[in-house]
Amino acid sequence: MMIKKKTRGQLIVLSGPSGVGKSTVISELLGQRQDIHFSVSFTTRQPRVGEADGVNYHFVDRAEFERMISAGELLEYAEYVGNYYGTSLKVIQEKVAAGTDVLLDIEVQGAAKVRAKCPEAVLIFIIPPSFEELSRRLRGRNTDSEETIAGRLRKAREEYRQIPSYDYLVVNDKVSAAAAEIIAILLAEDCRTRNRLHLVDDI
Amino acid sequence: MMIKKKTRGQLIVLSGPSGVGKSTVISELLGQRQDIHFSVSFTTRQPRVGEADGVNYHFVDRAEFERMISAGELLEYAEYVGNYYGTSLKVIQEKVAAGTDVLLDIEVQGAAKVRAKCPEAVLIFIIPPSFEELSRRLRGRNTDSEETIAGRLRKAREEYRQIPSYDYLVVNDKVSAAAAEIIAILLAEDCRTRNRLHLVDDI
Repeated sequence: MMIKKKTRGQLIVLSGPSGVGKSTVISELLGQRQDIHFSVSFTTRQPRVGEADGVNYHFVDRAEFERMISAGELLEYAEYVGNYYGTSLKVIQEKVAAGTDVLLDIEVQGAAKVRAKCPEAVLIFIIPPSFEELSRRLRGRNTDSEETIAGRLRKAREEYRQIPSYDYLVVNDKVSAAAAEIIAILLAEDCRTRNRLHLVDDI
Repeated sequence: MMIKKKTRGQLIVLSGPSGVGKSTVISELLGQRQDIHFSVSFTTRQPRVGEADGVNYHFVDRAEFERMISAGELLEYAEYVGNYYGTSLKVIQEKVAAGTDVLLDIEVQGAAKVRAKCPEAVLIFIIPPSFEELSRRLRGRNTDSEETIAGRLRKAREEYRQIPSYDYLVVNDKVSAAAAEIIAILLAEDCRTRNRLHLVDDI
């Protein structure tokens, strides 16, 4: 048996523009790496068709979200297109300390806050094969008005400026290939010397 | 098709104590990643049974090796247990510039020189599951005298001190698992943001 005891879990941040297909990639990833804990974010936005409370998001109202901010219960939070999105600090701390990898799906402002608080977090940005393709995917979803789509594309342009501060860049052309790359990134991060020095004999 | 054009190849350095099973791991790796160019080192040591010139090493005499040193033809070279080992600079430069990944099997002194000259090289150190197991593997080889084995173990102890300067640490318990980890490391390195910025639309 390969020695694989981990002293701490990894904190993995996935970002990418709305419409890039992040949730599909995450489903594929979590199917293959069932040991990863997916951190469910809190949000004040309305559930979309097919979204369930506690699965896609914890859906809360603004008053509750603002209470969580004041109580310091959030690792990061941001306001995006008029809604709050945030991540519970407590859950993450417990999981990582127990050696479990934790995956966060958050946008660039949140990712920057995670990096500042946890410098060893692994930041991965997912892009579409082209910006044109992103625009096609957003229209193909048929859930948003033209105005919302235009807003998402503007937002994506802003987000792209933050790409250089991410550790890894994954192109979501084929979902299986994108998931395979993320799985390779996580295995490689496990192999980092600083995460494995406990395996070296004290000679 | 996934966009995978690489602007430059990666320089990959593999080190590990004599007896760790590095050549077996490398064979497995090159079988799966046939696009990798394995840099054949030059050495003044005698070929072992089964070793062929130009395959395992380029075998040369001391006079020729010292000529190569003077002519600046080597990326790195070192003397180890009375013999020279060195790497051709020219071959590596050509391959990397053409987008080909190049694998070097060199010891810690050579690796430190590569790091100094090519800061973006990926340095991987392979260890056995335990130091006891290393000693068993060296004896099981039946090619070396007890004195040579003792020398190799002493050398291994020194090499272990350099482990923290390597990027990645791979435990060779099972060859297939060790090769899979190296393959994941190379894919992850391809995904590094700095190696992929050319895939981001200029928007």
